[in-house]
Amino acid sequence: MKNILIINGPNLNLTGQREIGIYGNISFIDFLDKLNETFQGLNIQHYQSNIEGELIDKMQQSMFEFDAVVLNAGGYTHTSIALGDAIKAIDIPVIEVHISNIFSRETFRHTSYLAASCIGTISGFGLDSYRLAIEHLLKR
Amino acid sequence: MKNILIINGPNLNLTGQREIGIYGNISFIDFLDKLNETFQGLNIQHYQSNIEGELIDKMQQSMFEFDAVVLNAGGYTHTSIALGDAIKAIDIPVIEVHISNIFSRETFRHTSYLAASCIGTISGFGLDSYRLAIEHLLKR
Amino acid sequence: MKNILIINGPNLNLTGQREIGIYGNISFIDFLDKLNETFQGLNIQHYQSNIEGELIDKMQQSMFEFDAVVLNAGGYTHTSIALGDAIKAIDIPVIEVHISNIFSRETFRHTSYLAASCIGTISGFGLDSYRLAIEHLLKR
Amino acid sequence: MKNILIINGPNLNLTGQREIGIYGNISFIDFLDKLNETFQGLNIQHYQSNIEGELIDKMQQSMFEFDAVVLNAGGYTHTSIALGDAIKAIDIPVIEVHISNIFSRETFRHTSYLAASCIGTISGFGLDSYRLAIEHLLKR
Amino acid sequence: MKNILIINGPNLNLTGQREIGIYGNISFIDFLDKLNETFQGLNIQHYQSNIEGELIDKMQQSMFEFDAVVLNAGGYTHTSIALGDAIKAIDIPVIEVHISNIFSRETFRHTSYLAASCIGTISGFGLDSYRLAIEHLLKR
Amino acid sequence: MKNILIINGPNLNLTGQREIGIYGNISFIDFLDKLNETFQGLNIQHYQSNIEGELIDKMQQSMFEFDAVVLNAGGYTHTSIALGDAIKAIDIPVIEVHISNIFSRETFRHTSYLAASCIGTISGFGLDSYRLAIEHLLKR
Amino acid sequence: MKNILIINGPNLNLTGQREIGIYGNISFIDFLDKLNETFQGLNIQHYQSNIEGELIDKMQQSMFEFDAVVLNAGGYTHTSIALGDAIKAIDIPVIEVHISNIFSRETFRHTSYLAASCIGTISGFGLDSYRLAIEHLLKR
Amino acid sequence: MKNILIINGPNLNLTGQREIGIYGNISFIDFLDKLNETFQGLNIQHYQSNIEGELIDKMQQSMFEFDAVVLNAGGYTHTSIALGDAIKAIDIPVIEVHISNIFSRETFRHTSYLAASCIGTISGFGLDSYRLAIEHLLKR
Amino acid sequence: MKNILIINGPNLNLTGQREIGIYGNISFIDFLDKLNETFQGLNIQHYQSNIEGELIDKMQQSMFEFDAVVLNAGGYTHTSIALGDAIKAIDIPVIEVHISNIFSRETFRHTSYLAASCIGTISGFGLDSYRLAIEHLLKR
Amino acid sequence: MKNILIINGPNLNLTGQREIGIYGNISFIDFLDKLNETFQGLNIQHYQSNIEGELIDKMQQSMFEFDAVVLNAGGYTHTSIALGDAIKAIDIPVIEVHISNIFSRETFRHTSYLAASCIGTISGFGLDSYRLAIEHLLKR
Amino acid sequence: MKNILIINGPNLNLTGQREIGIYGNISFIDFLDKLNETFQGLNIQHYQSNIEGELIDKMQQSMFEFDAVVLNAGGYTHTSIALGDAIKAIDIPVIEVHISNIFSRETFRHTSYLAASCIGTISGFGLDSYRLAIEHLLKR
Amino acid sequence: MKNILIINGPNLNLTGQREIGIYGNISFIDFLDKLNETFQGLNIQHYQSNIEGELIDKMQQSMFEFDAVVLNAGGYTHTSIALGDAIKAIDIPVIEVHISNIFSRETFRHTSYLAASCIGTISGFGLDSYRLAIEHLLKR
Repeated sequence: MKNILIINGPNLNLTGQREIGIYGNISFIDFLDKLNETFQGLNIQHYQSNIEGELIDKMQQSMFEFDAVVLNAGGYTHTSIALGDAIKAIDIPVIEVHISNIFSRETFRHTSYLAASCIGTISGFGLDSYRLAIEHLLKR
Repeated sequence: MKNILIINGPNLNLTGQREIGIYGNISFIDFLDKLNETFQGLNIQHYQSNIEGELIDKMQQSMFEFDAVVLNAGGYTHTSIALGDAIKAIDIPVIEVHISNIFSRETFRHTSYLAASCIGTISGFGLDSYRLAIEHLLKR
Repeated sequence: MKNILIINGPNLNLTGQREIGIYGNISFIDFLDKLNETFQGLNIQHYQSNIEGELIDKMQQSMFEFDAVVLNAGGYTHTSIALGDAIKAIDIPVIEVHISNIFSRETFRHTSYLAASCIGTISGFGLDSYRLAIEHLLKR
Repeated sequence: MKNILIINGPNLNLTGQREIGIYGNISFIDFLDKLNETFQGLNIQHYQSNIEGELIDKMQQSMFEFDAVVLNAGGYTHTSIALGDAIKAIDIPVIEVHISNIFSRETFRHTSYLAASCIGTISGFGLDSYRLAIEHLLKR
Repeated sequence: MKNILIINGPNLNLTGQREIGIYGNISFIDFLDKLNETFQGLNIQHYQSNIEGELIDKMQQSMFEFDAVVLNAGGYTHTSIALGDAIKAIDIPVIEVHISNIFSRETFRHTSYLAASCIGTISGFGLDSYRLAIEHLLKR
Repeated sequence: MKNILIINGPNLNLTGQREIGIYGNISFIDFLDKLNETFQGLNIQHYQSNIEGELIDKMQQSMFEFDAVVLNAGGYTHTSIALGDAIKAIDIPVIEVHISNIFSRETFRHTSYLAASCIGTISGFGLDSYRLAIEHLLKR
Repeated sequence: MKNILIINGPNLNLTGQREIGIYGNISFIDFLDKLNETFQGLNIQHYQSNIEGELIDKMQQSMFEFDAVVLNAGGYTHTSIALGDAIKAIDIPVIEVHISNIFSRETFRHTSYLAASCIGTISGFGLDSYRLAIEHLLKR
Repeated sequence: MKNILIINGPNLNLTGQREIGIYGNISFIDFLDKLNETFQGLNIQHYQSNIEGELIDKMQQSMFEFDAVVLNAGGYTHTSIALGDAIKAIDIPVIEVHISNIFSRETFRHTSYLAASCIGTISGFGLDSYRLAIEHLLKR
Repeated sequence: MKNILIINGPNLNLTGQREIGIYGNISFIDFLDKLNETFQGLNIQHYQSNIEGELIDKMQQSMFEFDAVVLNAGGYTHTSIALGDAIKAIDIPVIEVHISNIFSRETFRHTSYLAASCIGTISGFGLDSYRLAIEHLLKR
Repeated sequence: MKNILIINGPNLNLTGQREIGIYGNISFIDFLDKLNETFQGLNIQHYQSNIEGELIDKMQQSMFEFDAVVLNAGGYTHTSIALGDAIKAIDIPVIEVHISNIFSRETFRHTSYLAASCIGTISGFGLDSYRLAIEHLLKR
Repeated sequence: MKNILIINGPNLNLTGQREIGIYGNISFIDFLDKLNETFQGLNIQHYQSNIEGELIDKMQQSMFEFDAVVLNAGGYTHTSIALGDAIKAIDIPVIEVHISNIFSRETFRHTSYLAASCIGTISGFGLDSYRLAIEHLLKR
Repeated sequence: MKNILIINGPNLNLTGQREIGIYGNISFIDFLDKLNETFQGLNIQHYQSNIEGELIDKMQQSMFEFDAVVLNAGGYTHTSIALGDAIKAIDIPVIEVHISNIFSRETFRHTSYLAASCIGTISGFGLDSYRLAIEHLLKR
């Protein structure tokens, strides 16, 4: 469990800029630096795309280069059967994370096509959700 | 309110060619010329993609170069939570338009994941829906 | 397209007085004056009733005296099959308008028994929704 | 069973004029004359209103002057709990009729708030639905 | 319109015996005699089966020997797509009748897979529902 | 809190006459006399209409002449978004009352488009529901 | 309570042969012999058909020859309103039994159109469900 | 009608402390004192538990010591079939009360498993809801 | 199969006293005596609680002292996922019983969170449902 | 894979005669001849019945005489749990076919109780759907 | 019917590698070679993308270069209105295929936004589904 | 953030014993010891009950003695509005955890009445879910 890929989906490139009350005001790039500092023995990389199919591409490729994936699929969480299929297709562990507490938002955010194919879900802890996911991966 | 971007979603590149009974027989490019003629003081630009994530990319970038967006997301209107999130993430006004009257078509076209994040919706007036959206933007 | 009737439904007689955050603070009578000023060649008249059946009566009669109707049926939009039938029964164009963005309010306001019988819908632009409807009628 | 009131609801004043494919091209007044001719011993009267509450008023009063009611509530059939309550409140027989076959039209016309309080329903026989209702009343 | 077939579905062979409060206490055979007396110029025949497929067989054959069908499909009304298809497959008129008022009974009796393929429906008038159906057929 | 208007909706003019098992056998006029006797310092007035829109009219006007409204909207309780909007539009307190216990009747009576805009609801205590509403108004 | 009829519906002729994990591997005929041995004073007979209407026929006739019916309607349990009506039409007690536990199988097997017309239901005990039903009949 | 038991369900022990905007800032014990002062001839007692089954126990026992029950079952109102059964099992009158207006809160609070077994419901008047319930009990 | 525990849920302590039309007029204690008489070689014990969690406690402990459980969870049948989990957690057989026929009562009683974890269900035979359950346990 | 049985359900005996726009104008018998010509090494037989239970009978027997079944269950596709059970009960391959494209017809034709028990489904290719099914069987 | 394009959607690039129990262990490229061998006179090409919008692009372009399309849209089948619109926009025949039997998998795979715009659907025959589609195209 | 209470709901006292495939084979007491070892500066205590109301009691009291709560409400997660209310009533942070991945189990486990009142949710990581929750609390 040494190489870990964080995959961020739509609009997460704006983290730190948009809807600060919900997503916080730190950019993901700054946060990634801190994360790599915290977990010194690990190689944590990051990929972001707004395109559903590119997330699927990356998810498929991840199994050749990484030991695990931490996935925040943003709005695609609730609509993408295809991304859920990609998770099932690879055999490294995937953890679903969310910055905001999806259960205290609109009803259409309370479902996930991804969760059933992941190990588990961490939702609502701001950017710390990503750190917790990695904490668990180290433990496995 | 001087620079306005029209974003067209999937299959709208075929306007004037496909299902003429529903969408009319004028191409969007020809229509755009007329629109720029009508609104001489304005700079109206146009972007089209069939890729949901590229529409999100463009929506995000629009706030740096444009004063408002007129959005026809086609079939993604009814399925894209991610595009709705992109609209919420930017702070220029966005108006949802539809060429056809979506309420006289299939039930799955009667809902919108975008409308709640837009100023308002104009639906059913053929290509004139776009002109009305711009008429309103001028008024604001 | 010279004689146009605006039909306003329940509680729209209070426009300018009630729920100002949603409906604005200009009375409809004042707004109508401005509208007639703007569209000088037109004869724009106005009818309001809180009674569903009187709206149906007026809708039926409109076809003998007017060239088009702009209809804001307020709360009846979401419950009146009978008013929708009246629209279908006449052969002049009818446009559905709403002052507020009905898609950003309660779920029961997201449906319309009228829209399928109208040319189209304009929703969310404040009183300007009425002007846009007339702009389109001029164009036809 | 001598005095019979036919109550017609919204838009049925247009029978013979509107949507002729569905409702036929004979006016209700002409039809009523024929009906009185056919049933010579009976006193068949007719009331029409587009206003739900006036239909309720009439329904309530009918029990003092009539022996039975034949009711075509048009679009209110599917939305008026209050009219259904009025039927339950009186103790003369009421028969629900429809000119068109409501089961071959839109789904929202397949339910009735009135039927459970009536003796029965006759639907789909054009204006002959009214005659059949009276045929049955004579038989009782 | 001379030869008319009445098709009765499941449990209607028990009319006059079972659930008398709902279905009355006259047997269908006795009623049929009266019916033939009433309509002297007509040839009214009767077929009953508890087997859905035999009702379909008879419905198919009816078009070669009869001018119209009066159908009471009993419990199959609410569950038989196949019988509805048979009605659509023949080109003589079919009328749906019910002895009881199906709208004042269980919710699962409020729908019909047959009604949309019939001319119309007559429900709730006891055995008189059959007579009314024939009255209409004579009128056509 | 001195001038109180009781607004009664459809079929409540028949109180004391219809469905006595549910609504009791005292007429509302007699009851109103007793109520005025009980609350001697108050001016309790009464308005009834079977017409939805007239109830809306009265609700709107009430705020100029009364300090509070006690509303029994009968069957419109469950279907009238427009009446609910009228309550929201005025700024005097409105209390929803029902004579019968709406939760022990048909399912379609278990919902209310009005309750969310009222202070509260009192349901099931016969005519005493009205007295309790006024008791509360005195307390405020 | 001496003559008891067991009615078995579709596919139960294959008991002992098909889906042995669910239905066991004893044929129903062998089981019936044991049953008659167990209950020596009784006359237990058996009828099986895959045809819904023949089950209805038998159910109707049973009341003339039997004191009670034990019914396993197989797949028709969840779809046959007509068979439920037949049970209501006869006045001897009927008990619904199932070999498998219908609540641990597909959702569409969790409902029954028959249960409400039977005395009770016994489900999940393999062939012993039949014996328990007869045990109860003896007790009545 | 002399001995009255108030039964309060989960979290109502915190009244006056929690979510003051919704539940007010007076403790229930203080309120009870006032209530006993107001109704001097009565013996009003109070029981609170967070445990569903203890509320059922108390409800069952109440019929031996009390003439009526005023019940605020808090969150169990919407989920407890068992408590509803307990109300049906006793034969003294029970009134359902709520401090807040349950219809202006989350959708899952708009239903009640208790209401149909109570005389009636009083909801939305703050602690005054309890007083109104007792006012009615005195009247009976 | 010698030691059997009967677990009774909410309100079943009132058997013989409440709603006699539904539950009969024999107390459970008297019935238990008869049961022990009938099954002389067995040790049949009984536990009742109105508290969901105590039923779970008892269910968990039962596996150390008993060979099987007969469970009537009353109103918790339809709402308790937690009790269903407790059944799954133990490895002695559990049979679900109901005194009344739950399918002929309210719709919310037609579902069970317990049935899928039990061997089977016996519903509708009065107190005899318990005896039948034990009959089956003896057979296993 | 030599002996193949085609089982056709309700109304398919009318193929070539009814609703020609949907089902084509060739009779099934003629088509069968062509099919046997095309697949010269095979023995393709045909069975048709309008009776659900006879289709079940045939399905059960097929496994003794045939190597595979091609099934078009017509309207029973969407309603027959019992026929689905029969497919599961036999161990030769069954393929579901439809002449018309069931997804472009009424919503109630979009579900199938049979598909999950078959190898696969071929729908929408006219009579060619049968040929394709046999093409696949040859391949296996 | 000479040039045929196979369009494969998300995750179908992994065919032969992922979830072998469901999708088989032959790569699509190898299969395509065999297909071209089998249909020697045809020019069968193949396009795969994980990006919904690229599938739409290709679908639009296909009509200029191909005579027909065989489409397996994978997970987008159940979520993409936009892809369904693209199929409607072109006028060459499109056939929907699936490797697995979508009806024996999760419920969310039982619907298709594409099927209604295609000629027909072939589902469940492994890679042979593609061959059958082409067999049909040759026949047209 | 020094004193932390872990509250475990129904059946979690059996952790390590029941359904080991889902919940693992370590007892919670052993796990708690490890946890206190891991987080040496913290005072982590544990409370378990199968009684919903006792969990509410404890939740209410926790705010006086603890700085945060880690809650695994087991089966009550999906049914307890009352426990959700208790969380809202206290002002220390609460984190919802689950041992198993609730999204890969039955549908009724996919909802939570608690999540919206908690900071966030951690689900699917076995007992490590608890450790991650505490990791986050330390970070705050």
